[in-house]
Amino acid sequence: MFSELIINRRECRLTVYLDNSATTRVCPEAAETVTRALTSEFGNPSSLHSLGTRAYVRLEAARRSLAASAGAKPEEMVFTSGGTEANNLVIFGAAGSHASKKHFVTSAGEHHSVLEAFKRLEHLGAEVTILPLSSDGTVDLTGFPNALKENTALISVMAVNNETGAVNNTEQIYKTILAHYHGKKRPFFHTDGVQALTKIPLSLAFADMITLSAHKIHGPKGSGALAVKKGCQLSPMFFGGGQERNLRPGTENLPGILGFAAALEACPPYPEQPRFFKYLYDYTCSLLSGFPFVKINSAGGVYSILNFSVLGIKSETMLHFLAKKDIFVSSGSACSKGKKSHVLAAMHLPENVIDSALRVSFSRENKPEDIDVLCAALQEGYEHIYRKGKL
Amino acid sequence: MFSELIINRRECRLTVYLDNSATTRVCPEAAETVTRALTSEFGNPSSLHSLGTRAYVRLEAARRSLAASAGAKPEEMVFTSGGTEANNLVIFGAAGSHASKKHFVTSAGEHHSVLEAFKRLEHLGAEVTILPLSSDGTVDLTGFPNALKENTALISVMAVNNETGAVNNTEQIYKTILAHYHGKKRPFFHTDGVQALTKIPLSLAFADMITLSAHKIHGPKGSGALAVKKGCQLSPMFFGGGQERNLRPGTENLPGILGFAAALEACPPYPEQPRFFKYLYDYTCSLLSGFPFVKINSAGGVYSILNFSVLGIKSETMLHFLAKKDIFVSSGSACSKGKKSHVLAAMHLPENVIDSALRVSFSRENKPEDIDVLCAALQEGYEHIYRKGKL
Repeated sequence: MFSELIINRRECRLTVYLDNSATTRVCPEAAETVTRALTSEFGNPSSLHSLGTRAYVRLEAARRSLAASAGAKPEEMVFTSGGTEANNLVIFGAAGSHASKKHFVTSAGEHHSVLEAFKRLEHLGAEVTILPLSSDGTVDLTGFPNALKENTALISVMAVNNETGAVNNTEQIYKTILAHYHGKKRPFFHTDGVQALTKIPLSLAFADMITLSAHKIHGPKGSGALAVKKGCQLSPMFFGGGQERNLRPGTENLPGILGFAAALEACPPYPEQPRFFKYLYDYTCSLLSGFPFVKINSAGGVYSILNFSVLGIKSETMLHFLAKKDIFVSSGSACSKGKKSHVLAAMHLPENVIDSALRVSFSRENKPEDIDVLCAALQEGYEHIYRKGKL
Repeated sequence: MFSELIINRRECRLTVYLDNSATTRVCPEAAETVTRALTSEFGNPSSLHSLGTRAYVRLEAARRSLAASAGAKPEEMVFTSGGTEANNLVIFGAAGSHASKKHFVTSAGEHHSVLEAFKRLEHLGAEVTILPLSSDGTVDLTGFPNALKENTALISVMAVNNETGAVNNTEQIYKTILAHYHGKKRPFFHTDGVQALTKIPLSLAFADMITLSAHKIHGPKGSGALAVKKGCQLSPMFFGGGQERNLRPGTENLPGILGFAAALEACPPYPEQPRFFKYLYDYTCSLLSGFPFVKINSAGGVYSILNFSVLGIKSETMLHFLAKKDIFVSSGSACSKGKKSHVLAAMHLPENVIDSALRVSFSRENKPEDIDVLCAALQEGYEHIYRKGKL
């Protein structure tokens, strides 16, 4: 399916793209929507004339679509430039609106845009409790209720880990918070849903805020959203023309927003897609199980992400070997640019497993043949690199 | 030219679009570039494999193009989600990196994204000096040197006013700052160049930071940039994966960035375009001079913006009359959504002039016939509305 959809074959040769957690190719529906918004429907939603009004109507329709995906009301959705901005808005926004509350809780497996923002808060004087990970990659919630304090402003735990696919029990976390503060003013619960969107159901019924991103679900880069439950006050990070109910001013990125909604609408209905991912995941595992030099690090989860180690071969060496054959995987989060994985380290995996870890991440454009090509190349790469002594 | 380029005529009928300071239609070159980046060149510039590397190479080529437009080095460019983010990054970034310096200088004519950010800083305890406007819409610099203090962190004055087209003498401002602090540690000088880009030359030779935006020059919405002179330290607003030299993390909006560069490259060489704007400006003024009920509020400047009042008719009434005829103008900044213009108020124009002000703003897609259509409609609208007593 992937190769059929390639528009320019010369620029993008027949590839096996298995790095869909880093970014996805924009689907034809979203690409067409973006192109139309750039050219014939280019009004500024804030303009008072009818070209502006038409843009505004489309903006609100997209808001309704996105809201549905997060179990939110349309007026609970705020559009951002992506997941990183949304996560930062939650963290600095909660800190700004709770000046007297200086305690925060997060997990060791979060994305850099969460962990680094909390580091900044710590630098500014806040206290941050970091929950550990279990060996399966999920957040270890044993000590969670004890971590909650009277001055806790925010708990942020991702729905799905971007390196392992591990699914956290956000419903349990939310219910624990409600029970702990029963009736008293409680902290917000935020979940980074970037890797969860279209993979597992997301709902403001079990969170106060949810981060979403378009480019992980075949939508355009530069387009994200934050679902914020009514009544949750956040301080804005930007100030300006009052767009997005003053929470995120600036001319709305209408092509990006409409493209996000189009990508979402083009996704196969839940749970059809996750079923397909499980099929690919199981197929990959069955092939890898024949390789004595491979150790699987993922433990199920969303099944769209599979982390494993080719023992004895450094991640980057194998990654480049595969890339030369136009097989694209990653050594972890794209945002960490080859640095040692903090997620695998938090799972207490041995150094040699961490240093040789690869992440393959599926999209609906992959097919079982991609896995055959990958596994043949892994075998070849292992023998080739091992023989050359590049250990 | 405008009508020839319309892709979908049914959705975007033959219109007279004279609201190019609010937003512009994306030019075919930029639209094509964006579409290609969405589909066949969709890599994440931070990915280590060759698809990522190809994306990174394109990102850096765009950075070089954008840098040239701001008289900056490529390593001095930071990509943002637009002008509002860039302006906020300057203001909060300067405040964050100069914790001991609590004084700021700006002008009464700035865009909301500057004025509202400064209001927020004032709320947090900073002192903000607001320079007044002259009757021609430029910043009155009479008292400027006296406004500079030892603890001044930042001076922010826009290059071109978005409501009147007035051009501020940023070179004089910069030289005044250098002379005032001769040798001592001086504050940063920032200029919002959103309405100036492609209209007048911009250069870091006469500013420390310059804000740019794509969607005002036929590029995509959601894409902007900040030129930051080497050595000027700003605190980031976002934290995360380290992109944009840690000043603006988050997966780069590659389609938006490449589209921005393509739009810039598609612009006619300077000063061909400004000459065309002067022609349209003069032609409009000559037709309007025949209307005793029109008062011109602009005084030249970039000539791509002409502000005038249809005395006796409220801005919004005339704006909607024109919009029904598919003639799109605005009553001021799109971001102010019909609120009374703070720019015209700062020029000390009478209430009746402010209440009836219209802004027409040209692009290279306009033609003299658009002005004929506009002026005929203004005449008709004046008679029609006046007769109906809708004063």
